[in-house]
Amino acid sequence: MTRVAIIGAGPSGTAQLRAFQSALQKGIEIPEIVCFEKQSDLGGQWNYTWRTGLDKNGEPVHSSMYRYLWSNGPKEALEFADYSFDEHFGKPIGSYPPREVLWDYIKGRIDKANLPDGSNVRSWVRFNTAARNIEFDEATQQFTVTVHDYEKDEVYSELFDYVVVASGHFSTPKVPEYKGFKGFGGRILHAHDFRDALEFKGKTVLVVGSSYSAEDIGSQCYKYGAKQIISCYRSAPMGYKWPKNWSERPALQYVDQTHAYFADGSSAQVDAIILCTGYLHYFPFIQEELRLRTDNRLYPLSLYKGVVWEKNPKLFYLGMQDQWYTFNMFDAQAWYARDVILGKIELPAYDEMVAHTQQWHDTENAITEVPDMYKFQGDYILELIEATDYPDVDIEAMRLIFMEWKHHKKENIMTFRDHIYKSAITGTMATPHHTTWLNALDDSLEAYLQPAEEECKKVG
Amino acid sequence: MTRVAIIGAGPSGTAQLRAFQSALQKGIEIPEIVCFEKQSDLGGQWNYTWRTGLDKNGEPVHSSMYRYLWSNGPKEALEFADYSFDEHFGKPIGSYPPREVLWDYIKGRIDKANLPDGSNVRSWVRFNTAARNIEFDEATQQFTVTVHDYEKDEVYSELFDYVVVASGHFSTPKVPEYKGFKGFGGRILHAHDFRDALEFKGKTVLVVGSSYSAEDIGSQCYKYGAKQIISCYRSAPMGYKWPKNWSERPALQYVDQTHAYFADGSSAQVDAIILCTGYLHYFPFIQEELRLRTDNRLYPLSLYKGVVWEKNPKLFYLGMQDQWYTFNMFDAQAWYARDVILGKIELPAYDEMVAHTQQWHDTENAITEVPDMYKFQGDYILELIEATDYPDVDIEAMRLIFMEWKHHKKENIMTFRDHIYKSAITGTMATPHHTTWLNALDDSLEAYLQPAEEECKKVG
Repeated sequence: MTRVAIIGAGPSGTAQLRAFQSALQKGIEIPEIVCFEKQSDLGGQWNYTWRTGLDKNGEPVHSSMYRYLWSNGPKEALEFADYSFDEHFGKPIGSYPPREVLWDYIKGRIDKANLPDGSNVRSWVRFNTAARNIEFDEATQQFTVTVHDYEKDEVYSELFDYVVVASGHFSTPKVPEYKGFKGFGGRILHAHDFRDALEFKGKTVLVVGSSYSAEDIGSQCYKYGAKQIISCYRSAPMGYKWPKNWSERPALQYVDQTHAYFADGSSAQVDAIILCTGYLHYFPFIQEELRLRTDNRLYPLSLYKGVVWEKNPKLFYLGMQDQWYTFNMFDAQAWYARDVILGKIELPAYDEMVAHTQQWHDTENAITEVPDMYKFQGDYILELIEATDYPDVDIEAMRLIFMEWKHHKKENIMTFRDHIYKSAITGTMATPHHTTWLNALDDSLEAYLQPAEEECKKVG
Repeated sequence: MTRVAIIGAGPSGTAQLRAFQSALQKGIEIPEIVCFEKQSDLGGQWNYTWRTGLDKNGEPVHSSMYRYLWSNGPKEALEFADYSFDEHFGKPIGSYPPREVLWDYIKGRIDKANLPDGSNVRSWVRFNTAARNIEFDEATQQFTVTVHDYEKDEVYSELFDYVVVASGHFSTPKVPEYKGFKGFGGRILHAHDFRDALEFKGKTVLVVGSSYSAEDIGSQCYKYGAKQIISCYRSAPMGYKWPKNWSERPALQYVDQTHAYFADGSSAQVDAIILCTGYLHYFPFIQEELRLRTDNRLYPLSLYKGVVWEKNPKLFYLGMQDQWYTFNMFDAQAWYARDVILGKIELPAYDEMVAHTQQWHDTENAITEVPDMYKFQGDYILELIEATDYPDVDIEAMRLIFMEWKHHKKENIMTFRDHIYKSAITGTMATPHHTTWLNALDDSLEAYLQPAEEECKKVG
């Protein structure tokens, strides 16, 4: 029997599970699926852990998730086309749910994905099992997948005909060194190891970087009582209207035991330095020749339709793009990979695939404005969806939501999460959350879903 | 030509390099030696980095070293028999040197270990190169060693006849979870990620554990201004005379957002939790069948003379013991492994090796008093040294130094490092350091080696 290995059971890996289960539900014969997941539950990044550095098995902690994280984009732009928020929660909710709520949503779809024998698609997942080595044998045209089962502390190998790499690219921090770091007398950490903003209450925090992590971790520190936030940028400031105790400065030059020094000649006493400097696409568990090498971009080379490893179309990568769209993009990719594996989609010749990828890649390179990026990624998703039976998605409606989102952020970076949007899947309007984001200190699922108190109804 | 791979260039790996270079110096023919070192310099743990979690290559940070660490045992008990502190520093120094001074000493021996062609033994080391996989082929009787060269970002394999694993066992933290950790509002870290005590200045720190890390990291926090230190134990308190703001409590039961709760019913507000809970012997880069599995003990099973992998005597492990003795024990082991490889030492049959190991292992199990542990490990070292040309070591003198050390710690845990001892190698008496440990806030090599000021001479 044909066998498919999926590496990872986060948003991309579960999309792949659901894609196959959905085909099975429609009476289509599918291969044997085995999903290897390093963590003990589904959800990838959304599966929060207090651990940092190495996990209890001595392996790098996968998740970069921190406490109190709320979606930084409208949920209406990431909604699954085959499983709406309405279906999961049974009532409208706010547009920027906290981490636990989104985790619940991801798991909810899988928990309902049952198999003909009455079991659940979770039975395809081998938890606490990390991929160690993936090799391809030209002679047999099969992959040997070697994994480490933590529970049994056993390393074993199995043969597969296809491999889908869905291990994400927000797990391996890119950590630059600045002069003086060896002698700095406070904590230096990468965003990957940031867990609880309360640790920085009353402190002066230096946030290095000007992308989403910097913006959000700085905002967390502000919300939970940091004394002062300084963020610094290499090319351009984020430029939002920051609270009084948040200043943006040009590039960090060096630090000494107590102070940071910036390119404009200014300096400041800082207690902690948080490096929001991005992540590496890092797949040490894949044989050199099969390993994707890319920086964080909308259209990496080597992947036809952003999914198929051109040099060996039995290998697939999901979710390796820089992401405006997330869950629904992973779905579109997973459905596409599935249909290639099922033989429903015929791939063009190698040269043609390479040329197609290069064209999209060049188009991306020509983009200069952010709104054109939403458009580009939306067009990409549409091309994938057209090729499969994944439910239609009103990408244009989502693009407009992104435009609104951007506008709301510019308006006020500390209140943009109080806005609501209309689902492009169900047409349902979100309801304002019972507490404004800045005042909602408890981010639990329970607190989020409880009915609004009278006085909270005014908010939003 | 026979080829030997050494994994790691820390205290054990450099001992192995020096052992072979020393034979070569004496005109003995030696195999080709290749040492793979993940870091960019020699020294293993002693090579300090400010990084925690993952290093710049996306791999687990090797070193658990922190700033301001001073030797926690007398240097006279770890001195190399073939390279004294006198020879390295050209003058007597104190008995508990800080990290950079010991690092300099380790590197000093290697920097003087030249080869007949005028190059240095460092030329055998491939830096920035991590071991990925070590397998043995029964048919060819050779090891395939697969490594990752970070500089070239290239994975490659080479064949070897012998492998010496010298990668240490203080790199992979053992990290227990306590109830409430998910919701604790401060930093939780393992000793492995502890870097700078100044981070905890003015804070209340909970140190979980009652062994060397707990004692030393707590002392660091005290020295650099923590408001309060609470340490907690499972079996017995450390029992030293702690400063007023340090209390010992029984086992941690759980935490909430702000407080820790102990087995005696007491609780305390704490800002940070430092888990001094030990390390795992973890070698994911070695094929299952060749992998040492042991806890931290004086005489692990599976290793004849604590060094030779009984099931395949072409494989060696150095420094895998719980350690009273360190540098000179690694030397004794490295010289022994060398002489097995050179065919100078003939190994007994498998059953005999296993029985010999079991006997020592049982003897260890019968030990109840700490001084008997020094004695046990000293006897073990003597047995090794007798089998090779490693210079004789006055182990009895070192044992007495350990006894004094223990006494000085009991006397005053905050001043024991101000004592001095006589070298068992050269007979030189150490000189009191110019500043008492508690007042010596600058731990640099430069500060340590500078001549004593007049007023400091009274100290000691």
